[in-house]
Amino acid sequence: MTQSLKLAVIPGDGIGPEVTAEALKVLEQAAPADVKFEPTRYDLGAERYLATGEVLPDSVLAEIRRHDAILLGAVGGRPGDPNLPPGILERGLLLRLRFELDHYVNLRPSRIFPGATSPLADPGDVDFVVVREGTEGPYVGNGGALRVGTPAEIATEVSVNTAFGVERVVRDAFARAAKRPRKKLTLVHKTNVLVHAGAVWSRLVTEVGREFPDVTVDYLHVDAATIFLTTDPGRFDVIVTDNLFGDILTDLAAAITGGIGLAASGNVNPDRTAPSMFEPVHGSAPDIAGQQKADPTAAILSVALLLEHLGLDDAARTVEDAVVADLAARGSAPRRTSEIGDAIAARVAG
Amino acid sequence: MTQSLKLAVIPGDGIGPEVTAEALKVLEQAAPADVKFEPTRYDLGAERYLATGEVLPDSVLAEIRRHDAILLGAVGGRPGDPNLPPGILERGLLLRLRFELDHYVNLRPSRIFPGATSPLADPGDVDFVVVREGTEGPYVGNGGALRVGTPAEIATEVSVNTAFGVERVVRDAFARAAKRPRKKLTLVHKTNVLVHAGAVWSRLVTEVGREFPDVTVDYLHVDAATIFLTTDPGRFDVIVTDNLFGDILTDLAAAITGGIGLAASGNVNPDRTAPSMFEPVHGSAPDIAGQQKADPTAAILSVALLLEHLGLDDAARTVEDAVVADLAARGSAPRRTSEIGDAIAARVAG
Ligand SMILES: CC(C)[C@H](C(=O)O)[C@@H](O)C(=O)O
Ligand SMILES: CC(C)[C@H](C(=O)O)[C@@H](O)C(=O)O
Repeated sequence: MTQSLKLAVIPGDGIGPEVTAEALKVLEQAAPADVKFEPTRYDLGAERYLATGEVLPDSVLAEIRRHDAILLGAVGGRPGDPNLPPGILERGLLLRLRFELDHYVNLRPSRIFPGATSPLADPGDVDFVVVREGTEGPYVGNGGALRVGTPAEIATEVSVNTAFGVERVVRDAFARAAKRPRKKLTLVHKTNVLVHAGAVWSRLVTEVGREFPDVTVDYLHVDAATIFLTTDPGRFDVIVTDNLFGDILTDLAAAITGGIGLAASGNVNPDRTAPSMFEPVHGSAPDIAGQQKADPTAAILSVALLLEHLGLDDAARTVEDAVVADLAARGSAPRRTSEIGDAIAARVAG
Repeated sequence: MTQSLKLAVIPGDGIGPEVTAEALKVLEQAAPADVKFEPTRYDLGAERYLATGEVLPDSVLAEIRRHDAILLGAVGGRPGDPNLPPGILERGLLLRLRFELDHYVNLRPSRIFPGATSPLADPGDVDFVVVREGTEGPYVGNGGALRVGTPAEIATEVSVNTAFGVERVVRDAFARAAKRPRKKLTLVHKTNVLVHAGAVWSRLVTEVGREFPDVTVDYLHVDAATIFLTTDPGRFDVIVTDNLFGDILTDLAAAITGGIGLAASGNVNPDRTAPSMFEPVHGSAPDIAGQQKADPTAAILSVALLLEHLGLDDAARTVEDAVVADLAARGSAPRRTSEIGDAIAARVAG
């Protein structure tokens, strides 16, 4: 019997559609014989907003919710476009999806694949995963401003951290650490300055840690974490951290492991009360859009995370192996976006 | 006539006293013949707190205020010390000084000195300065928690951003950029998520920028900034950013330019309504304290910033040149803290 899986596809803006096309190409080859992906495309992003004023209509969100998973390319218009104030698409589309679909585990693995080039002279063996909280922290949109545009303006942004929200992501991170060979968890925060938020995180890492006696725990301030990511990235196994620190650390992690063109992510709802969403960490890069210059590898590796989330572990492994093989074989000659996708799809096929 | 300058010295904790001793040694050699520094030592930090419960008594703050400048080593006890909850010293001493003395320009230069080793394979020419806002943002201590220690706990941290506070640091950063050969200013923020705070920063960079038509302005999200710091640090000239982003970026900047052992900083009150404070970016490193293992170079370079702030430009240059010469001559054999201080002091003495 064939299992049918409904996939919502949001190609988005800039290079989003190009990399998504390659990701879908690979997904098609990777799906097991008895699994059929049914993609439905949702045109959301800058173009739709600029044409219609719509960001994410409730009816569209309701439709997306009825899928088994979501594949997203990238969202964001031309920087500085006066018709597209900063945040409209990020807050209204990308973050709204993460929050409404309760993607509390924002999963971002970092490995230095053979063939990938790190800007670090001697990165060593790097293989860690950042478990970034996805539904709280300074990302909640709980801010405001008074006397806007005047010399007396005051603007605030409130970071909200609940025991409910922190505990569940910390438990997920511990469970991941327990399954990995090194069984190590590093909490990254800024407990010496953000003392209230920091205290919830520290307390719950200690408390939940009791359920995972095999996992070694340590702590780093976020500033110190950036130092270790550049001087000794091999020390990390699982990092658990807040939404904003996770945003910053995972771009840095992508940079040191060979670039944002390779960094995949999953916005995961571990309770499966709504579909999880998979996307490259990179943005929409409007400056190179439509030129077949974007590297679709991050989008393709996001497909591997998607397959794994859906329990299709063998297919996930096949995609990852194909990427690893392609990276190892990459020369310095630039390839078009579709050439990279074709090459990886061919390896997956066989 | 001899000018006498009153210097408040706060050696602090861990390696703080060791590196401060070397900084004072160098300061003594560097001071011009007609300038006399009168140091007064203030024992503040973990030891005093643990013995007396005192962090920064009002009377001590009042005394410190009457000095011409402050030299600080490092503050912070043993991590995890149950008698020293996170934040007590940081919020109560270090940040209290920065806030009470209105150190709104937290100045952190980054250069790759000849002889220094970067973890980057090919860092190129790096010479930029981060102007980190020092009196607002998520550092204001405007947070709280409800139902602490229960599953219903909620903790908040409020980032406060005023036009008053942002405008003055932005103007200072532009003025610094205008005096540098490349005349470039990069605003780093996260305007696409922290839309209210981001809007104040963007607006004031645009507005104040009109007064500095020679300065080129660009913008990076904080996550993207970490990528450029590791892949193309040479692109930066002056970075202006908020308190927390500045904290994170300057540790990263220190890492890629040869380590936190070389990173100096000034907590500057440009209006001179209170003394400015100079300190290495590094922490108290209690694990290596008292072993003469710490590199005092960052503390010594902080003395150069102090001299410059006091208008003693030649002396500042002499200290910097001595550090550059010492770095270029450094072999791989480790030297004791005092050996490094002696060597640099000897070069300054000439
Ligand atoms: C586009 C932006 C809102 C987003 C974020 O900050 O989370 C991006 O940087 C990411 O990391 O997925
Ligand atoms: C010790 C800590 C409070 C401090 C900060 O966060 O500002 C330090 O990291 C720094 O950068 O000077």
